[in-house]
Amino acid sequence: MSVGDVSKRILLGRKLRSSQLGETLLPKRIALPVFASDALSSVAYAPDEIFIMLAIAGTSTYVWSWKIGLVVALVMLTVVASYRQTVHAYPSGGGDYEVATVNLGRNAGITVASALIVDYVLTVAVSISSAAQYAAGAIPPLIDHEATVGVVAVAILTAMNLRGVRESGGFFAVPTYLFMVAILGMCGYGLLRLLVGDLPDAESAGLTIQPSPGWEEPLTQVGLMFLLARAFSSGCAALTGVEAISNGVPAFRKPKSRNAATTLLLLALIAITMMMSVIVLAKQMTIRYVDPHELDRLRSAGGGAVPADYDQHPVIAQIAAGVFDHFSPGFYFVITVTGIILVLAANTAFNGFPVLGSILAQDGLAPRSLGSRGDRLAYSNGIVFLAALSMLLIWVFDAETTKLIQLYIVGVFVSFNLSQLGMIRHWTRHLRTETDPAARRRMLRSRAINTFGLGMTAVVLVIVLITKFLAGAWITILAMGFFFLVMRAIGRHYARVELELAADEQDKVMPTRVHAIVLASKLHKPTLRALAFARATRPNVLEAIYVSIDPKATNRLLEDWDERRLDIPLKVLHSPYREVVRPIVEYTQEIRRASPRGVVAVYIPEYVVGRWWEQLLHNQTALRLKGRLLFTPGVMVISVPYQLRSSQVAQERERRDEERVHAGDLRRGRVTSRNSRPGQIDDL
Amino acid sequence: MSVGDVSKRILLGRKLRSSQLGETLLPKRIALPVFASDALSSVAYAPDEIFIMLAIAGTSTYVWSWKIGLVVALVMLTVVASYRQTVHAYPSGGGDYEVATVNLGRNAGITVASALIVDYVLTVAVSISSAAQYAAGAIPPLIDHEATVGVVAVAILTAMNLRGVRESGGFFAVPTYLFMVAILGMCGYGLLRLLVGDLPDAESAGLTIQPSPGWEEPLTQVGLMFLLARAFSSGCAALTGVEAISNGVPAFRKPKSRNAATTLLLLALIAITMMMSVIVLAKQMTIRYVDPHELDRLRSAGGGAVPADYDQHPVIAQIAAGVFDHFSPGFYFVITVTGIILVLAANTAFNGFPVLGSILAQDGLAPRSLGSRGDRLAYSNGIVFLAALSMLLIWVFDAETTKLIQLYIVGVFVSFNLSQLGMIRHWTRHLRTETDPAARRRMLRSRAINTFGLGMTAVVLVIVLITKFLAGAWITILAMGFFFLVMRAIGRHYARVELELAADEQDKVMPTRVHAIVLASKLHKPTLRALAFARATRPNVLEAIYVSIDPKATNRLLEDWDERRLDIPLKVLHSPYREVVRPIVEYTQEIRRASPRGVVAVYIPEYVVGRWWEQLLHNQTALRLKGRLLFTPGVMVISVPYQLRSSQVAQERERRDEERVHAGDLRRGRVTSRNSRPGQIDDL
Repeated sequence: MSVGDVSKRILLGRKLRSSQLGETLLPKRIALPVFASDALSSVAYAPDEIFIMLAIAGTSTYVWSWKIGLVVALVMLTVVASYRQTVHAYPSGGGDYEVATVNLGRNAGITVASALIVDYVLTVAVSISSAAQYAAGAIPPLIDHEATVGVVAVAILTAMNLRGVRESGGFFAVPTYLFMVAILGMCGYGLLRLLVGDLPDAESAGLTIQPSPGWEEPLTQVGLMFLLARAFSSGCAALTGVEAISNGVPAFRKPKSRNAATTLLLLALIAITMMMSVIVLAKQMTIRYVDPHELDRLRSAGGGAVPADYDQHPVIAQIAAGVFDHFSPGFYFVITVTGIILVLAANTAFNGFPVLGSILAQDGLAPRSLGSRGDRLAYSNGIVFLAALSMLLIWVFDAETTKLIQLYIVGVFVSFNLSQLGMIRHWTRHLRTETDPAARRRMLRSRAINTFGLGMTAVVLVIVLITKFLAGAWITILAMGFFFLVMRAIGRHYARVELELAADEQDKVMPTRVHAIVLASKLHKPTLRALAFARATRPNVLEAIYVSIDPKATNRLLEDWDERRLDIPLKVLHSPYREVVRPIVEYTQEIRRASPRGVVAVYIPEYVVGRWWEQLLHNQTALRLKGRLLFTPGVMVISVPYQLRSSQVAQERERRDEERVHAGDLRRGRVTSRNSRPGQIDDL
Repeated sequence: MSVGDVSKRILLGRKLRSSQLGETLLPKRIALPVFASDALSSVAYAPDEIFIMLAIAGTSTYVWSWKIGLVVALVMLTVVASYRQTVHAYPSGGGDYEVATVNLGRNAGITVASALIVDYVLTVAVSISSAAQYAAGAIPPLIDHEATVGVVAVAILTAMNLRGVRESGGFFAVPTYLFMVAILGMCGYGLLRLLVGDLPDAESAGLTIQPSPGWEEPLTQVGLMFLLARAFSSGCAALTGVEAISNGVPAFRKPKSRNAATTLLLLALIAITMMMSVIVLAKQMTIRYVDPHELDRLRSAGGGAVPADYDQHPVIAQIAAGVFDHFSPGFYFVITVTGIILVLAANTAFNGFPVLGSILAQDGLAPRSLGSRGDRLAYSNGIVFLAALSMLLIWVFDAETTKLIQLYIVGVFVSFNLSQLGMIRHWTRHLRTETDPAARRRMLRSRAINTFGLGMTAVVLVIVLITKFLAGAWITILAMGFFFLVMRAIGRHYARVELELAADEQDKVMPTRVHAIVLASKLHKPTLRALAFARATRPNVLEAIYVSIDPKATNRLLEDWDERRLDIPLKVLHSPYREVVRPIVEYTQEIRRASPRGVVAVYIPEYVVGRWWEQLLHNQTALRLKGRLLFTPGVMVISVPYQLRSSQVAQERERRDEERVHAGDLRRGRVTSRNSRPGQIDDL
C-alpha cells in the first residue's frame, strides 16, 4: 500500500465507523429516559418543598398546594413550548448557550455558561441529598448520616465516571420507566382508593403544625402573597432539567428536531401528571410536612410536641406507606426506584458537564484541550471539579434538600430568560428577510410563544430572586460571577495569543542553514539511531555533543567513539559543577548568536520505557532539557525515541485508555470506540 | 565570533569559575566546624543516655558512669584512627560507601548506603528531638509539646533547604566554636569550683532512684554486665557523625588528606574532652537522671514521689544551672548554643543526603537524574523524603531521644564495620604488590590499626544488637533491608537497560528516506515557522497535516492555505469522533508501514507561554501527542517552538532556579553559582 492510498483511506474516514453512527442514534422511546431522568426526578422533592414553604404559616395554607402545583405546571408548559421552538431553530445541540451567544452576544453566552456550570453542580448536590433522604427513609440506621451517605454516593459516582461507564439507552430506560410506573401506579392506586373511600391518612396526618414565629394567623394579604410566592418558587425546582433535550438534539433519530420536540412535550406531560398526582394525594391524605430543621413545630394530636425520635419521611415515602399499607413491597419498590432515579439524575450532570466543557473549549472559553476527545487529564479534572464542588455543598448544607433548593433555581431561570430573549431576537432577525407568508406565520407564532415564555420566566426569576436571595441565591450569583470572570479571562487570553501569533508577510523566510547537534550520553543504540536520523536530514553542520561531568566516563566515550570510527565529530563540553542542561542551552545560544539566520537542531536520543517507576528512573534530564530549549529562540528540539521492550506495556495502557468510554458520549450522539457493539441500543 | 571559537571557549571551561574553586576550599579551622557539628552535638544527649541506662538499677551503678565514658572514648579514638587511614587511602570523598564497594563488592556498598540513608533520617530525628527537649528546658510552656516543636523545626529546616540556603563556613563556624566555648567553659568553671570545694549539687541531687522492677539490688554478675553493656551502647551515640570528614576530603585545602586526618584527630580530642568533662561534672554534682517516661521512679529526699509537675532537665542543663547558679546568663547561653548546634547537626543531614544521592546515582543505584546538579525536582524529592521520614519518627516516638537512640547506633556501626573490613582488604591487596619497605611498614601499621578498629567496632555492633534489638534496632534493620532491596532493584534495572541498549554492528544503518509531516492547527506564525524549518531540513517528502474535527474550521484553514500560496501540500485527516492524537499516530504508522526503512519526522509547532495558568491553557494536545509518538517506532518528533512574549517570565524563573544554591554544595568542595562571592569563606 503506498502512502497515497493510506492518506486517501484516512481522508475518507473509517467506513465502518461512519455507518455505525446512524445505528446508535436514539429512537424517541430511548431518548425520553436518557434525557428525562433529571426533570422527572424532581417530582421526588419539588412537592415536598411546596408543602414546607406553605407550612410556615401552619396547615391552613395547605389549601393552596394544588393551585401552586397548577401554576408550576403552567410555567413548565410554557417553558417546554419555548424549548420546542429552540429545538427546531438550533438542532446542533448547543442549547441555551448557543442561542444566547448567537443572538445576544458573547457575554450573554458566557452568562448562560456560568449558570449551567452552577446548575450542574447543584443538580448533583440536590439529587444526591434527596436520594440520601430516601435512603434514610428506607434504612433507618442511615438517619442523621445523610451528608455522609451523600458524599460517599458522589464519590462512587465520580469513580465510576472517571473509570468511564458506558452510558447506554438501557442504563437509563429501565429505571426511568420503572420510576414512571412506580409513581403513576402508586398515584393511580391511591386515587382509586380515594374514589372508593378507602384511602388511609398519611402517617403525619394526625399532627398539627405550629406556624413559624411572625407567621401566625391571621396572615396579612402581603404576607400570604409572599408565602405563596416562596412556595411557588420552590416548586419551580420541578422545572430543572427540562432543557436537557435541547442540548441533545444531535442524538435523536431523524427527523431530529421533530422527534426532539415531541419527546419534550411528552416529558412535560408526564412530569406534570406525576407532580399533580403527588400533590393531590398528599393533600387528600392530609400530610403534614415541615422543614426538617424545625421538627419542633410539629405538634401531636394532643397539642404536645412530637417525640424526639420522630422521623419525617419525604412526601412520596409517606404516600407510598399509606397507599400500600397492606402491601409493603409496594412501598419499598417506590422508595428504591425513586432513590435510583435521583442518582441517575446526578449522573446526568457528570455526563453533561464534559459536553459543555467541550463546547466552551471550542469557543475559547475553557482550556482548548477540553475540546478534543481523549484528553483524559483535562476531562478527569472536569469530573473531579464537579464532584468536589458538589460534595462541598452537600457537606456544608448537611444534605438538606430544602436549603440547597434555595440555591438551585436562580441559575436555571437565568438561562431560561436569556434563552427566551435570544429566541425572540432570532425570530425578529429571520422575519426581516423571510418573505414566504406561511413561514412568516410560523415565525410570528414562534416569536409569540417565546415572548410569552420570556414574560413568564422573567416574572418567575424576579419572584425567585426576591424570595430566595438571602436564603442562599446570593451564593449562586456569586459563583456565577466568578465563573463568568474566569471564562472572560480565558477568552481574552486566547484572543491575545491569537493576535500575537497572526501570520504576516515576513514569516515565510527560510532559515539559511541548519546546525545539527546530537546529544550523546553514551555510545549505545539510541545515540547511534539519533546520529543516523540526524545525518538523514542532511544538515549543514552535524556534530555530537557530550557534557562531561566525570573524566573517566568522558574518556570511555571518546575511546568508544574512536573505536567505532564514527565520522561525526564529538565535542565535549566541560561542566565543572555537574550541570547538564545549562552548558547545552548556552552552546545552542552561542551557535545561534554566531549565525542568527540559521537554526539549531538539537537531537535528543531517548529510550522509552513502559512502567511508571521506570519512567522515574529515565529521561528526567531529557525532559528538563527539552523544557529549557523550548524557551531558546531559533532552536528545534528533536526527540529520537528508541523503544525498549518494556515500552509495550505503556503503549498497551495508552491504547486501552484511548478506547475507554467518556461520560457524555451517548448524549452527543456518538459511539465512542471501535469496540462498541453496533445496534446495542436497538437490542433493548 | 565563529562557532569554532565558541566551542573552544566552552571546552576550556569558564576560566573564572575554575580559579574560584581553589579559593573556596576549606582551611582546617573552617573545615572543623563544617564537619563537626554532628559529632560534637552528641555530647548533648550521649551522657544523658549513659545515666538513664545506669539508673535502671538505681543510683548505685552511677559509679560506673565515667568508666563507661572512658570506654566510649577509647572506641572513638580507635574509630578515628581507622578513619585517618581511610582519609589517606580514599581522598575522593566516597567515604565508607566507596571503601566498601571497592574492596568488598557492590552488595557491601549497597549495605553501607542503606545504613547511611537510615542514619541521615535518624540524625535529623534524634538531633531535633534533643533540641526540642533543650528548648522545653529553657521555655517552660513548651513542656509536653516537644513532638510538635520537633515537627515544626523539621518543617522549617525543610523549607529552608528547599529554598536553597547557602551553607557557608561562617554558618557553621560561629555556632560550633561558641558551643565548644560554652561547654568547655562551663565544665572548666565547674571543675574549678570543684577544686575550691564550691561546686553546688545539681537540682536533682536530693532525689533517689527506685530501680526498675527486676533490677533491684543486689544485681547478679550477668545482670550488671548487661546493664553496663546497655549503658555503653547508648553512650556510643557519641560516635555518630565522626565519619563525616571522610566524606568531605575534597573540600579541604591541600594537602587534602593530611589536613583531613589532622582535623579528624582534633575533632575526636575535643569531643572526648567535652563528653568526659560533662560525665565527671554530672557525677560530682550527683545528678539523678531517669528515662523521662519513668519519672515516677524518682523519689524525693523523704522517700515520697516527686511532685507531679517535676521536670527533668537534660544533664547539660542541670550542670549549667548548678555551675552558673549565681549567673543565669551563663545558663541561658549554654542552653541556647546547645539547641543551635543540635539544629545545625540536623541540617548536616539535609546537606549530606543529596551528596549521597548523587554518588548513588552515578553508580546506578538511585535515579540517574540525582547525579547531575540542578534537577530541582529529584533533589527536592530527596529533601522531602528525608523530612517526612524524620517527622514521622519524631511524631511516633513523641520526640523522646532515649527511644530514638535505640534505633540510631545500629546503622552507624554497620557502616563502621564494613568500612574497616574493606580497609583491611585494601591494605592486604596493596601489600601484595608493594615492595618499598617503608611503604610496606606504613601499610602494615595501617592494616593493624584497621584490624584493631574492626575488632573493636565488631564487638560494639554485637553489644548494640544484643542490647537494643527489641528496643527498636529491629526497625532500623528492617528499614535498611528495604532500602537495600530498592537500590538493588534500581541497579538491576539500569543494568538490564544498558544490556538492551548496547550497540551492535547493524546500528549504523541510515534511514533511506525522510518523510516529514508538519502538524498545522491554524495558519499562524508557529505553523509557518515549523514549515520553514521542516523545509530547511530538505526531507524527501514534505506535507502538512490537519486533523479536522469541525468542517467550518477546516474550510477556513484550506482557504488561508490557498490564499498564502504555500507550495506545501496540506492533507486533511477527518476525525469523526473529535480525536486528534490517534489519527496522527495512525497516519505515521501507515507511512512507516509503506516504507519500513524510512523515517517519519513529525514537526509540531508549539508556542511557548510563560505563566503556569497559561501553560494549562496551551499545548496539552501537543504534549499528549509527543508522548504517544515516542512509542511509535521509526518516528522523530520535532518541536518547533515559537516564543510568545510572556515566555520571558518562565525563562527568568528557570534561570533563577538554576542559579539557586543546593544543599550539600559546600561539602562537595564546590561553589554553586556564578553569583557566589569568591573568598567568602576567607572573609571570616
